[in-house]
Amino acid sequence: MSHNTFGHLFRVTTWGESHGAAIGCVVDGMPPNIRFTVAEIQAELDRRRPGQSRYTTQRQELDQVRVLSGVMPGETEGDYVSTGTPIALEIQNTDQRSKDYSDIAQRYRPGHADMTYDVKYGIRDHRGGGRSSARETAMRVAAGALARKVVPGLRVRGALVAIGATWVDRSRWDWDEVPRNPFFCPDAETATRWAEELDAVRKSGSSIGAVVEIVAEGVPAGLGAPIYGKLDADIASGLMSINAVKGVEIGEGFAAAALSGEENADEMRPGPDGRPQFLSNHAGGILGGISTGQAVVARFAVKPTSSILTPRRSVDAGGNAVDVMTKGRHDPCVGIRAVPVGEAMVACAIADHYLRDRGQVGAVRA
Amino acid sequence: MSHNTFGHLFRVTTWGESHGAAIGCVVDGMPPNIRFTVAEIQAELDRRRPGQSRYTTQRQELDQVRVLSGVMPGETEGDYVSTGTPIALEIQNTDQRSKDYSDIAQRYRPGHADMTYDVKYGIRDHRGGGRSSARETAMRVAAGALARKVVPGLRVRGALVAIGATWVDRSRWDWDEVPRNPFFCPDAETATRWAEELDAVRKSGSSIGAVVEIVAEGVPAGLGAPIYGKLDADIASGLMSINAVKGVEIGEGFAAAALSGEENADEMRPGPDGRPQFLSNHAGGILGGISTGQAVVARFAVKPTSSILTPRRSVDAGGNAVDVMTKGRHDPCVGIRAVPVGEAMVACAIADHYLRDRGQVGAVRA
Amino acid sequence: MSHNTFGHLFRVTTWGESHGAAIGCVVDGMPPNIRFTVAEIQAELDRRRPGQSRYTTQRQELDQVRVLSGVMPGETEGDYVSTGTPIALEIQNTDQRSKDYSDIAQRYRPGHADMTYDVKYGIRDHRGGGRSSARETAMRVAAGALARKVVPGLRVRGALVAIGATWVDRSRWDWDEVPRNPFFCPDAETATRWAEELDAVRKSGSSIGAVVEIVAEGVPAGLGAPIYGKLDADIASGLMSINAVKGVEIGEGFAAAALSGEENADEMRPGPDGRPQFLSNHAGGILGGISTGQAVVARFAVKPTSSILTPRRSVDAGGNAVDVMTKGRHDPCVGIRAVPVGEAMVACAIADHYLRDRGQVGAVRA
Amino acid sequence: MSHNTFGHLFRVTTWGESHGAAIGCVVDGMPPNIRFTVAEIQAELDRRRPGQSRYTTQRQELDQVRVLSGVMPGETEGDYVSTGTPIALEIQNTDQRSKDYSDIAQRYRPGHADMTYDVKYGIRDHRGGGRSSARETAMRVAAGALARKVVPGLRVRGALVAIGATWVDRSRWDWDEVPRNPFFCPDAETATRWAEELDAVRKSGSSIGAVVEIVAEGVPAGLGAPIYGKLDADIASGLMSINAVKGVEIGEGFAAAALSGEENADEMRPGPDGRPQFLSNHAGGILGGISTGQAVVARFAVKPTSSILTPRRSVDAGGNAVDVMTKGRHDPCVGIRAVPVGEAMVACAIADHYLRDRGQVGAVRA
Repeated sequence: MSHNTFGHLFRVTTWGESHGAAIGCVVDGMPPNIRFTVAEIQAELDRRRPGQSRYTTQRQELDQVRVLSGVMPGETEGDYVSTGTPIALEIQNTDQRSKDYSDIAQRYRPGHADMTYDVKYGIRDHRGGGRSSARETAMRVAAGALARKVVPGLRVRGALVAIGATWVDRSRWDWDEVPRNPFFCPDAETATRWAEELDAVRKSGSSIGAVVEIVAEGVPAGLGAPIYGKLDADIASGLMSINAVKGVEIGEGFAAAALSGEENADEMRPGPDGRPQFLSNHAGGILGGISTGQAVVARFAVKPTSSILTPRRSVDAGGNAVDVMTKGRHDPCVGIRAVPVGEAMVACAIADHYLRDRGQVGAVRA
Repeated sequence: MSHNTFGHLFRVTTWGESHGAAIGCVVDGMPPNIRFTVAEIQAELDRRRPGQSRYTTQRQELDQVRVLSGVMPGETEGDYVSTGTPIALEIQNTDQRSKDYSDIAQRYRPGHADMTYDVKYGIRDHRGGGRSSARETAMRVAAGALARKVVPGLRVRGALVAIGATWVDRSRWDWDEVPRNPFFCPDAETATRWAEELDAVRKSGSSIGAVVEIVAEGVPAGLGAPIYGKLDADIASGLMSINAVKGVEIGEGFAAAALSGEENADEMRPGPDGRPQFLSNHAGGILGGISTGQAVVARFAVKPTSSILTPRRSVDAGGNAVDVMTKGRHDPCVGIRAVPVGEAMVACAIADHYLRDRGQVGAVRA
Repeated sequence: MSHNTFGHLFRVTTWGESHGAAIGCVVDGMPPNIRFTVAEIQAELDRRRPGQSRYTTQRQELDQVRVLSGVMPGETEGDYVSTGTPIALEIQNTDQRSKDYSDIAQRYRPGHADMTYDVKYGIRDHRGGGRSSARETAMRVAAGALARKVVPGLRVRGALVAIGATWVDRSRWDWDEVPRNPFFCPDAETATRWAEELDAVRKSGSSIGAVVEIVAEGVPAGLGAPIYGKLDADIASGLMSINAVKGVEIGEGFAAAALSGEENADEMRPGPDGRPQFLSNHAGGILGGISTGQAVVARFAVKPTSSILTPRRSVDAGGNAVDVMTKGRHDPCVGIRAVPVGEAMVACAIADHYLRDRGQVGAVRA
Repeated sequence: MSHNTFGHLFRVTTWGESHGAAIGCVVDGMPPNIRFTVAEIQAELDRRRPGQSRYTTQRQELDQVRVLSGVMPGETEGDYVSTGTPIALEIQNTDQRSKDYSDIAQRYRPGHADMTYDVKYGIRDHRGGGRSSARETAMRVAAGALARKVVPGLRVRGALVAIGATWVDRSRWDWDEVPRNPFFCPDAETATRWAEELDAVRKSGSSIGAVVEIVAEGVPAGLGAPIYGKLDADIASGLMSINAVKGVEIGEGFAAAALSGEENADEMRPGPDGRPQFLSNHAGGILGGISTGQAVVARFAVKPTSSILTPRRSVDAGGNAVDVMTKGRHDPCVGIRAVPVGEAMVACAIADHYLRDRGQVGAVRA
């Protein structure tokens, strides 16, 4: 809802800096009597974890999550049942080479939040980006693993659909392909091409942007709270809050601007079960801020990270002109690891709205 | 923050349906001792008001706003000074031809919120779209007029940058041109072309999408509350909550995905006053969710309205196949009137963050 | 939740000053498909309305409430069905003798909020107390009338249990007596005694304090959100926010401090239906912040109003010593009219927690 | 603001159960650049810590707090400077004799939250009371230590003013006496008497209630957000949310009910500095929900714990009649350890309102 908390009834509060002792989150509002395992959370974290290929930062974090509260132990170790009280999750930070950053303590990296944090707070944890580091998103992924459990039948999947100007070919879209390549790419041919292109980017010390698509299936019709808590507005807020995201769209998104009303309207016919069935999904599963029962489709654009080896003109905290080059370990395409993060934010927004309609307790009583 | 309220410390709660007795809003958190006139609010409302050209709905609403609370009268009639207590604004609904809608009471218009409201609430005010009508946005505009007063030196302007596939020519951008044509177009030549294109759309009973750009100047550096209350996340939420909006972007937006880190980074040099000065604004004035002091630039895509004269396949509330054609008075391009609404949402988000940093009382004491 | 809004899912936002054009509220979160009549709201307002006996202020307000949004008309005039969208209620202010207050515009009445509003906001609507007037509580009562409809079987009643040092005799408690006397007194004999005592207070231009008791029956077991949204914490917040209230207690309240664990514990035995049945209700129907299913019992103390005819030493806005005497029309015992207000706050808190558990939509689907 | 979070801009979210791996809290909204030491937090925790005298539970918890985020290290170990990002505090649970509770897993202790948690959530962590244990209040005390740092010059102190029917003699009130006895008693003679009385209670396996008084000095005039975020309403909510609290009052509190307007009004005269000076403080430092600049005075009643050795009639989870006796280590008077908890809640409420007025950043910029 605000500051370091996302959600209204399914509330995720994250804390921690890139190079502090630990990072963590509190999930407040998890319905009671929901079974989950620490392995399920870990599996999601492992998808986001750095150091898994040469296309992501070489920082090695085991990202071993612990469940500290809000549960009763299940039958085997690592099995839990939620009790309805806040669930605290925590990951110790282990691989922190703070010295990598010492030379940028007083320098503002262009395109980074260095200057704005200093202006706002008058103090900044410069080590690894501090609070503005993408490391915070690990806890979103952990919380998202719980959110996925809240709505029965919910399935939230994501894929990278563009790196730079190279888009996937939707005619070859195959969800099964996504975990098979290091890009979350649903199209094997495009993945091969991306590998070549990213190698060039990496070797030149540069970086490149990307576009991520999230598809949520099994979203019950009726979720979303008009006017300012529309499901799409909350998804937009959640996705835009991810590091480096500069654009968010639902369904046709910006392409809808060029369509006519005839083209864009999703017609309906009675379905086999007598309920309204849509003949298309330009709307991305949301009308008037409320889910239609179709798949919710969201995309977001991730800018190229400014942590590059090419020196850029900047200033330091004292107001002097300096040139800045980032030597730390970084991702040539931060958009890749944003895929599980985007899934998590969409899952959290949907879980939150599910509880707004059904209540924390009502959700498991129906 | 939720449901029918936007904002955290500058909180706007709107109420009312298209064809109810009135619509209104409560602005809670307005700092005390700020002078404003009802004419200033009315001027903003008049920019959004329907019936002003043949390109917007012919519904005639005077949209005469009244200030019911939260103020002491100033020296002349219609002058006010805020007292720090909630300001209630209200507009009577006067021109309601409910009969226009009687034939769609039981039919779901494709692309409209008819079906989703019914699924969610089990009841729906079908007259003019009820709560899902764009009429609600009048109160956003009214609240935005107050938000503009909160931050000294803030200037929020908007323009339509695309209708359908026709974009403005940025080399001809002229803010002075915006109020001179019925499209909020900053480019006279494009405005002429749009006039022709929209005439064709209107005559065929069709509709077309659009893209709006909002530019906020005078935004102090340092506004924005990481992690989940980032200024861009709140702007995204506010803009996405506007009727028919399907995409939101900040600065380079989706185009950033195709850029390299070198291209996208905004370099800095010490400015004449010794403070950091940016050499470009790809970021759209926001880094790490915090304003940089540059202009905040946001764009959003508005889909074509589904209220068209061409019959579309649909179902009715009883589950039967029907064809739906909307005969009411509607805008061929709802994106036009979204310009002042977008300005208002950006102004409200900025005012809210200004107060989060400085406090309701501190904002006027500094 | 904050400032001028009470509640989390059943959210009541009030606005308006004693001598402005109108007062009103927005009830956001009312479940859909709940039938109510304007007469039901009016009936509650009439119980709080001033000018009904010589023991309350002679200000004559018809307090005629209007329903402006959030409803579809029912079968007869004044009948409504909620649609799930915000319900706006409004009362025009009609009898405003602002001149009565002109001599206290610059003087701080001891015991009033005059000085604190000036210190906080640097401006104050002095007419009739402005926003700090008890007139605001009319909208709480109106909202409470809707809250009562949210929880099936809920019955919230209140009574005055003490004026000054004179307490009702609980052995004579008769709810049917409450509407028969001008004090909401459940004990006819005490009502007679209060009439005499209050006549003396009124004639001397003085005022006296009171204690109100609210009893809510039909509260489902399980309502209340540990830790900081406990049902008793929210009731305490709601009651303490009523003008002139200085103390709140639940069940045994302060008397519990003098009890032993044996005396205070409410023992249980299996009830006729097999469910736990309490043998006493020292807890006032709440354990660990969660309702037990017994009657929720709350009491609050109302201080004597400081609007008295005896001059009191004070200062003016310029810092000069002055003597202040309030000549306006006031209640000798403001606690009397606080009874329906207390009922409303308890009803709102219970409705809010009912929705937190079951959701806005789930509440009417079970 | 809700559920497991207290506060609006100074937000404290606590998590953890009595017998889980750890307990903790996240303090979101701490202004940047505030210096504090872990020793300062520890000192407050040590005042609340159990096992320090024979009058409190013999459970031995070192309650060693760690600071995990939101800070930059200061010059010496354990010194910190806040950065404006969330501060996570954590305490490992070390001394958990869960077996003590095994026999009450299925039995509802009268006066405890056992039954209500089961009814609400359908599951309950019975070990040591789980989430409903007073152990959670350790994190309130830790957060309160930070809250005390937010408002310059703020001093919040508490004292026990009654155990059972034995009240302190206010004519002997000496704040210096409070830390010298195991009761936080400001009156040495009463402390001696309480020692005798409590010995008897303890030996009989019984328990007794208490009343706590909190006095906050150095509260700036003007804090408090009418109407539903009044300073006294938020203090009432915070204090009522403490385990076993059944009543809260401000200033004269319930005694005000028996006073006349003349007696209760706090008269004013110009002070030496020309500003209004109160001649008394019946109001407890709050008028109209806004602080007057005088000391804020709050009291709360703590019921006797129901964990007693005398068997009480009850039921078990299966609905059978059982007798329950609590054999665990418990406090004969839980009100004693509530003193630092009450201080913490008042400090948090004041810090929150300080930030609402001045903003998170503005608070340290003035």
